[in-house]
Amino acid sequence: MSARTPESARDIPEATVARLPVYLRALITLADEGTATCSSEELATAAGVNSAKLRKDLSYLGSYGTRGVGYDVEYLRYQIAREIGVTQDWPVVIVGIGNLGHALANYSGFRSRGFRVVALLDADPVRQAEVVAGIDVRSFDDLDRIVVEHGVSIGVIATPAVAAQDVADRMVAAGITSILNFAPGVLTVPEGVDVRKVDLSIELQILAYHEQRKATAGTEDAS
Amino acid sequence: MSARTPESARDIPEATVARLPVYLRALITLADEGTATCSSEELATAAGVNSAKLRKDLSYLGSYGTRGVGYDVEYLRYQIAREIGVTQDWPVVIVGIGNLGHALANYSGFRSRGFRVVALLDADPVRQAEVVAGIDVRSFDDLDRIVVEHGVSIGVIATPAVAAQDVADRMVAAGITSILNFAPGVLTVPEGVDVRKVDLSIELQILAYHEQRKATAGTEDAS
Repeated sequence: MSARTPESARDIPEATVARLPVYLRALITLADEGTATCSSEELATAAGVNSAKLRKDLSYLGSYGTRGVGYDVEYLRYQIAREIGVTQDWPVVIVGIGNLGHALANYSGFRSRGFRVVALLDADPVRQAEVVAGIDVRSFDDLDRIVVEHGVSIGVIATPAVAAQDVADRMVAAGITSILNFAPGVLTVPEGVDVRKVDLSIELQILAYHEQRKATAGTEDAS
Repeated sequence: MSARTPESARDIPEATVARLPVYLRALITLADEGTATCSSEELATAAGVNSAKLRKDLSYLGSYGTRGVGYDVEYLRYQIAREIGVTQDWPVVIVGIGNLGHALANYSGFRSRGFRVVALLDADPVRQAEVVAGIDVRSFDDLDRIVVEHGVSIGVIATPAVAAQDVADRMVAAGITSILNFAPGVLTVPEGVDVRKVDLSIELQILAYHEQRKATAGTEDAS
């Protein structure tokens, strides 16, 4: 591996990238609780990883904490937010304003992480009469104009599965290069476009794993 | 580490547990595409991890694939589903039937992973007149009865933040031992109760990281 500074850290492993938002969430919670400094063990526990992995991950950012003191919560929070890129403002469009689209438009976790919903789009004219979270629902045909006007690079798909590929194609044609897909199924996009999928059942499955262990322990162990 | 069989695998690392649902999702996609066998490289790519980690993770389940053939997609899918515990049926209650609760009640990804929504509860009498996804919305006061009747161990909180702790307390009192929390904020629960939180902004942050890299690469590189 080559020497790097935080500013030029181009090759952070993907698994580390995926954990940075988890550390950020833990640091925001610690800051909200009034914690000024924390040890790597405390932060690791709050984030649900082991502390050796946490220290390794943070070393990619050039963050090593201070021996005997630990990490400055606010500063580390800023470093990670800057590394992820959420110290800047990200305009986002949401397409598909059914129940999930409504919930996403109202989701406070987007705004607090630097994501600003600039437009809500739906193909259904009935939906277009609505105002959700203070934003007018507009026609899906306005997508190109909105992407240019607000410099949107990130689109969220909350449509039914049958519409998702068409919406993705139109997003890519409009110039969007990152798509967060809530619809079931796999999207095909050109190279250079990133797609991430939210699977709401993943956390439930992790709970089920532990429930199963509890049940088995209860049957087999005396304790 | 002690010797283990898949049936007695009690100490799978938490990070591996968190990846099992991701492998399961990738295997379901491969199966849906008609793929009968896959190499560890193919499965690792589909799941977005490196193949050495995948092989290590699967070794905890006693799954090593067949040299020159790879993994049997359907069998590995079954092995992982059994390990997670989603080959059995998990009755689930959802509390808070606003937009997010509606979306969750209709979410096909729960049913397809073994989670069966047995009740939708809301404190608002107006909501209690509704039928969502074919299920009557009932009073939150029915929680205890429903937990006993259906043997519910997993509860989903989709209420506003102010109500979440009270709902969690009532769930724990009713006998629920795993909570999936969609409300902002931290829940306090007794030992032995697992809480997982869904942060819908995490995948967006990973997209933002890559968008930032694309933008920087475009500015600094000739390519």
